[in-house]
Amino acid sequence: MSMTMTQKILASHAGLEEVKAGQLIEADLDLVMANDITGPMALPIFSQMADTVFDKDKVVLVPDHFTPNKDIKSAENSKAIRDFSFNQCLTNHMEQGKCGVEHAILPEKGLVVAGMAVIGADSHTCTYGALGAFSTGVGTTDIARGMATGKAWFKVPSAIQFHLTGKLNPYVSGKDVILYIIHKIGVDGALYKSMEFTGEGVKELSMDDRFTICNMAIEAGAKNGIFPVDEQTIVYMKEHSVKPYEIYEADKDAEYEQTIEINLSEIRPMVAFPHLPGNGHTIDEIEKEEPIYIDQVVIGSCTNGRMSDLRKAAAILKGKKVANRVRAMVVPATQKIFMQCIKEGLLEIFVEAGCAVNTPSCGPCMGGHMGVMAKGEKCVSTTNRNFVGRMGDTQSLIYLASPETAAASAIAGYIANPEKFGG
Amino acid sequence: MSMTMTQKILASHAGLEEVKAGQLIEADLDLVMANDITGPMALPIFSQMADTVFDKDKVVLVPDHFTPNKDIKSAENSKAIRDFSFNQCLTNHMEQGKCGVEHAILPEKGLVVAGMAVIGADSHTCTYGALGAFSTGVGTTDIARGMATGKAWFKVPSAIQFHLTGKLNPYVSGKDVILYIIHKIGVDGALYKSMEFTGEGVKELSMDDRFTICNMAIEAGAKNGIFPVDEQTIVYMKEHSVKPYEIYEADKDAEYEQTIEINLSEIRPMVAFPHLPGNGHTIDEIEKEEPIYIDQVVIGSCTNGRMSDLRKAAAILKGKKVANRVRAMVVPATQKIFMQCIKEGLLEIFVEAGCAVNTPSCGPCMGGHMGVMAKGEKCVSTTNRNFVGRMGDTQSLIYLASPETAAASAIAGYIANPEKFGG
Repeated sequence: MSMTMTQKILASHAGLEEVKAGQLIEADLDLVMANDITGPMALPIFSQMADTVFDKDKVVLVPDHFTPNKDIKSAENSKAIRDFSFNQCLTNHMEQGKCGVEHAILPEKGLVVAGMAVIGADSHTCTYGALGAFSTGVGTTDIARGMATGKAWFKVPSAIQFHLTGKLNPYVSGKDVILYIIHKIGVDGALYKSMEFTGEGVKELSMDDRFTICNMAIEAGAKNGIFPVDEQTIVYMKEHSVKPYEIYEADKDAEYEQTIEINLSEIRPMVAFPHLPGNGHTIDEIEKEEPIYIDQVVIGSCTNGRMSDLRKAAAILKGKKVANRVRAMVVPATQKIFMQCIKEGLLEIFVEAGCAVNTPSCGPCMGGHMGVMAKGEKCVSTTNRNFVGRMGDTQSLIYLASPETAAASAIAGYIANPEKFGG
Repeated sequence: MSMTMTQKILASHAGLEEVKAGQLIEADLDLVMANDITGPMALPIFSQMADTVFDKDKVVLVPDHFTPNKDIKSAENSKAIRDFSFNQCLTNHMEQGKCGVEHAILPEKGLVVAGMAVIGADSHTCTYGALGAFSTGVGTTDIARGMATGKAWFKVPSAIQFHLTGKLNPYVSGKDVILYIIHKIGVDGALYKSMEFTGEGVKELSMDDRFTICNMAIEAGAKNGIFPVDEQTIVYMKEHSVKPYEIYEADKDAEYEQTIEINLSEIRPMVAFPHLPGNGHTIDEIEKEEPIYIDQVVIGSCTNGRMSDLRKAAAILKGKKVANRVRAMVVPATQKIFMQCIKEGLLEIFVEAGCAVNTPSCGPCMGGHMGVMAKGEKCVSTTNRNFVGRMGDTQSLIYLASPETAAASAIAGYIANPEKFGG
């Protein structure tokens, strides 16, 4: 046997001794998730298959994309999953004001731990790989079947190994790492493959860094991203969950399509220019050109709305003011994070600086609400996609960056180097 | 001469010794306001009349209705007034994260003081009558002309005198007073008239109570609502403004169409049932019937999003949880109020209770965003209008109430008596 970490999890969930890249398998699922966009579409399909979900502990519906509801249609969609969640007596009922953004709330509530197989009807479900779980985004039909049967089919992915060494410099974080990697390999660089992170550098990355990195694995086309379980992972799981976890390690002779060496200490603050996450530029390259003036800054989302993200942004914004021509939104990813921001004084820093602080929501990330852009506007955003029109008008521009770069840019009024606005 | 308070302000601004009810006059304006809905419609009309505003200190454009922007159209509208505000070098530039809801931010920033004549392209512009100013809502053409010339025509209103005596009981506030009055006189009970509040009871009402009462004068059809200037008003103005103010008092023999006696001590917590603000019921009547279960609670808006409102709501929510089936939104009316809520620990109470706290915005009040309702849903709201479909689907229901009643209902899950959830 010679399997990657992902392959081992899949084999175990398929009841097989061994799986190989390309093999079609059916796996048991430990968690099935949908949101207020994908859930309502899945429900009619589900109802053709079953009356009740396969396991009320293992199905979660999260109203986060258009909540608090922006219009009647989104209110009807939220109501659809809310009613279903109550009627099916789902153990983990999610509601606005009480939960948060799906990919932040599931780990926070301890619903995902190492070794699990998870599907979510949202492309950034790959986030949970940070915990050493296999998790991936699927479509509406697959999620409906998952809710009904607790099973899903997969083509076993091959893998690219990212061998991490070194240590991040100050003002460089997980977001810079993943933007660096996607810039390096391209937005289809890991198409239907696992991105498996290994090496001495892993321990230098915080759990939040790992969530951010895995969150954007899909932006390189990956089936999933996954980190090995280490001391930090175990501490995180013990803090958040009572679920038993299982640690899978890649075989020493696991077959990787490719091994890419990443020296963390060489990574600079990165900004992905419109209109692809792979269109990365280092802050040094940016500083050599004319300033790129901006209209908006967004700090939040399933990519970068966690505590350490907000702490870093606050450290830069502390005692400063958002530039006159800029509007800045801060959206903590969960209610608990929102509360922690109050307790640590971060919220005070954001509000004093002139940021609009909103309740946990996907918000402006996919142009849903809470910060949609007009024609010609430019935004520095800690979110995960800068596709044409994603955050508003097709002629608006999104620059993806870390919370620190976003915070520095909010103060400067142009895309700015966080090293120079140090907190 | 024998004039009401309103008539005296109008006479003075028209350069006349005396005006009479029904007379058409042209008055000089001290402040002209529009928002992100009405402003963009006014600008093309303005541009047919003038290149520059009549006075850059006296024109204010407030982006509050659909901000942070909910869609491309609203983003374009905000951009239109933002660009105009910058291009015209308006002294008071307003932006999200830095201002708030129009009728809260203008008094807070000291832009309105006693004796002023103010028009706003928003029906609840009558709010500023709390400060002893004449202020009223006008349409797009009038606001455009106001911006260009600093003038507006008015038909001088007659008045109804509301003679206040007594003192409010605990858990009864300005919102209950105005719902009680509108219930008494009907939604056309003061049609094109001034509602002039007088009597010993005035001093028992806080400034926030007075803002709330004047805010909803329009809901009785009034041209304006107005309070006499007393010690409290002067303290408020000195705290917020450097503008000179002028105190106008009604003549002793001023002619009122009617005088209505209001004993504040007799007013009970009031709830206006769908679909009219005049459809008031006392909490005692409500408690005698079957519970009215609710889906949503909204605490905020130009009516009830001020500090004392949030303090009262927080006192009730402290240490409690929003009911399982209810989602509760809290929207502080300005950035300063948001900050004060953090400092006083109110935000912590709201977040801990399970409320979704949003950045200052009109939000769900007119079904804009941040809490639009699906078919059949019911909401207890501290806003000012419960018209059919105002907050979402035409088959959703809005119950208008005070922040205390709203907070109690959020905890109970049905319309509840705040006296029984005492903070």
